[in-house]
Amino acid sequence: MHKLRVLFVFVVLFALSSQTFAIGTSNRFAVDVDLLLVGATIVKMNAEREVIENGAIAIRDGKLYMVGTRNIVTRNSRAKRVIDATGKVIIPGLVNTHTHVPMVLFRGISDDLDLNDWLTKFIFPAEAKNVNEQFVRAGTRLGLAEMIRGGTTTYCDMYYFEDAIADETKKAGVRGVLGETIIKFPVSDNKTPEAAIAYTERFIKKWQGDPLITPAAAPHAPYTLETETLRAIKAQSDRLKSHVVIHVAETKKERDDINKQYGKTPVEYLDSIGFLNERTIAAHSVWLTSNEIDIYKRRGVGSAHCPTSNMKLASGVAPVPEMLVKDVAVGLGTDGAASNNDLNMWEEIDLAAKLHKLTTNDPKTLPAEQAFAMATIGGARALHLDDRIGSIEAGKQADLVILDMDGLHQTPWFNVYSSLVYATKASDVRTVIINGRIVMQDRRLLTLNESAIKLEARRYRDSIVKSLNQ
Amino acid sequence: MHKLRVLFVFVVLFALSSQTFAIGTSNRFAVDVDLLLVGATIVKMNAEREVIENGAIAIRDGKLYMVGTRNIVTRNSRAKRVIDATGKVIIPGLVNTHTHVPMVLFRGISDDLDLNDWLTKFIFPAEAKNVNEQFVRAGTRLGLAEMIRGGTTTYCDMYYFEDAIADETKKAGVRGVLGETIIKFPVSDNKTPEAAIAYTERFIKKWQGDPLITPAAAPHAPYTLETETLRAIKAQSDRLKSHVVIHVAETKKERDDINKQYGKTPVEYLDSIGFLNERTIAAHSVWLTSNEIDIYKRRGVGSAHCPTSNMKLASGVAPVPEMLVKDVAVGLGTDGAASNNDLNMWEEIDLAAKLHKLTTNDPKTLPAEQAFAMATIGGARALHLDDRIGSIEAGKQADLVILDMDGLHQTPWFNVYSSLVYATKASDVRTVIINGRIVMQDRRLLTLNESAIKLEARRYRDSIVKSLNQ
Repeated sequence: MHKLRVLFVFVVLFALSSQTFAIGTSNRFAVDVDLLLVGATIVKMNAEREVIENGAIAIRDGKLYMVGTRNIVTRNSRAKRVIDATGKVIIPGLVNTHTHVPMVLFRGISDDLDLNDWLTKFIFPAEAKNVNEQFVRAGTRLGLAEMIRGGTTTYCDMYYFEDAIADETKKAGVRGVLGETIIKFPVSDNKTPEAAIAYTERFIKKWQGDPLITPAAAPHAPYTLETETLRAIKAQSDRLKSHVVIHVAETKKERDDINKQYGKTPVEYLDSIGFLNERTIAAHSVWLTSNEIDIYKRRGVGSAHCPTSNMKLASGVAPVPEMLVKDVAVGLGTDGAASNNDLNMWEEIDLAAKLHKLTTNDPKTLPAEQAFAMATIGGARALHLDDRIGSIEAGKQADLVILDMDGLHQTPWFNVYSSLVYATKASDVRTVIINGRIVMQDRRLLTLNESAIKLEARRYRDSIVKSLNQ
Repeated sequence: MHKLRVLFVFVVLFALSSQTFAIGTSNRFAVDVDLLLVGATIVKMNAEREVIENGAIAIRDGKLYMVGTRNIVTRNSRAKRVIDATGKVIIPGLVNTHTHVPMVLFRGISDDLDLNDWLTKFIFPAEAKNVNEQFVRAGTRLGLAEMIRGGTTTYCDMYYFEDAIADETKKAGVRGVLGETIIKFPVSDNKTPEAAIAYTERFIKKWQGDPLITPAAAPHAPYTLETETLRAIKAQSDRLKSHVVIHVAETKKERDDINKQYGKTPVEYLDSIGFLNERTIAAHSVWLTSNEIDIYKRRGVGSAHCPTSNMKLASGVAPVPEMLVKDVAVGLGTDGAASNNDLNMWEEIDLAAKLHKLTTNDPKTLPAEQAFAMATIGGARALHLDDRIGSIEAGKQADLVILDMDGLHQTPWFNVYSSLVYATKASDVRTVIINGRIVMQDRRLLTLNESAIKLEARRYRDSIVKSLNQ
């Protein structure tokens, strides 16, 4: 009787298996996979910019095992778990190439001020009085939760206590290029650049090789560090083969000051001391000459374009169209939420596409597909991780976002890139997968406690306000 | 027995009334009201820019009857219905000062093209082959649904079959200044400007005095109409005391062409023929001289600033800071979704605040409060409706939006205007009230059938694609 029942179940399973994806396949050569996503429009962002209608993606061991039409992928894989994504669009996880994640706790602490007033009256005192490891952990959790909700799967950070940021990032299951800040002033965690370099050494050695975390040094900027310190950081990075994240030419003042001090523009100066290479990530890069763009290309520097922050702080407009023509790797970044005021990559994509049309007086500049590329494969290139992320291609890590595409604001849609860039919002992100792990499903965060995070953030808000009034 | 029961009910009511707002008040001088909103932070947008913590709003006969602290309002009113808005923020309904609402059906039909190609290869053929009264009704319903979801309670429109748009707008319970397009080419509804003027006459007479609909003439632009036609439209508007909506100086080419033809810049030309007055609404107004801004102020013209559309089409940047310094009434508009690609006022507010910081090289330009004003009381002024809408003040129409303020992307918040402008999204809009009627409650549309609207829009999409391939 028992045997008969088992046999019956097998017969039913076999019968179903040829009909429905939910069970897998009758193909005896099919491969076992961990997760199968079926039915969506897949925007691959590979070199050919393929878009697969009614596609499927098989994920195994955290990687994209198979990507193709639904028929082929489901016939050749047997999944433990299936997500039906019919009517949805699947994109590579978004890459936020520049932020200071714990600064979400300073979101809107002050706005609309001269840069100097903003920094010296609000940001610096607020940091001096509030930033410690616990603060950084709370801010990181808040920022990670916001980023996951908006479909960001990889981010590049520069802040203090970066080891704690790495710890929180790994726990949340998010991918990060995380740089410990090195600056010539005493800051919350390290009181001298030498101490910061020593911290960075331990930090990089601890995290190198981690599947999610790429540890980095983050020298603050050419104008906030001595030449010798920059050389020491470069030597360390060469020795450890580690990434370096740095602010470059964010403001005209910085460009002019460096020019006055060194007789060179910022990128020329950095290049003259041998600082730039194919592991450098240069944020902002607003005030660049054509020659400096050529240097970026020649040295393999990745650039993080932050249109919102650059507009809000009136820094200027980075020469992104020229960088793209010259094939410099350009990604998009939110910058810290204190100057944005959120970590929403969708707004960066939309804004980048429109901003450069305005500054070039040409509506053909930065078409939707190219703008979307900056947030995915372009961002991956800028972070020097494009061999692992940034597109939906077999062999890459499974960093994926499933999008709702039936919001009123998205209806109707004619072209998928147009809809992604000009109509889709962070609130359309439904499910997020990083390294094969589902970190948000149907808008529910699975690796972070949203209500606890908000409660904690509001408590920090109160103590920040109190600290500034003292 | 019956009397005893009635008495019992009254005793219970009386006992409760002193404890909880839900029943009303024990004050025998209290006034009966239709709806009471309690517990929210109220951003009034009155001249003093008052913000009331733990406030309440009593609505009676479609109007704001009482606005104040929770204690005072609840003590003095007895409501049929109460909405607990504790922890929420209530703002005046947003005012979208420029759109072509049925064009949502052309959302993303093509992008990133030269203006001429975009118009002649896509927009004009798509309109010629698809626009009829049914199309306009379907598009209007879709656009209205999207606008309500985003907290827009009043919009200013310019399209064809405007009588059908007015009918759909009134049915959905939305407020509109709706202008029938008059242009020198044959269009979907009227084949000559004379026919359009006659249509406008009937249209205005039919709708004037309606509590929601302000009918208007919408001469397309100085460059698409003869001087005599503009004069006839002005004479009609003077006779009927009706609004006039017009595009002005959107592109440099238009400015130069008008200058060549008439020896005057567009606003100077319009003023020279006596066209401008305190019922004129001028969209875009990008290429204005200081003198033209002075003319706007002198004539009482309202201006509709459309930052997204002007960037996407590379039209330029309107001189908004100078207009505001000169106290010209400036509102914000999305323009049609074909050049945006949505009807999201939150993005216009955020973008306006940032765009003018960039163009003036000054992060103090257009601070959050001023940007938010452009979307509320400023927009009401630009539409010449500020005696009735745009702020939360007793006596005005009850056009209100209740916002969630606890999204991750809004957490924490320090200043309400900063959060509204730089962090809050359309998806944070929870409940929308227009003219005292709840049109969306807890994100559910009450006056429109969302799924039917989407289905219909997708059907139109298919037929638009087919029509363009013919």
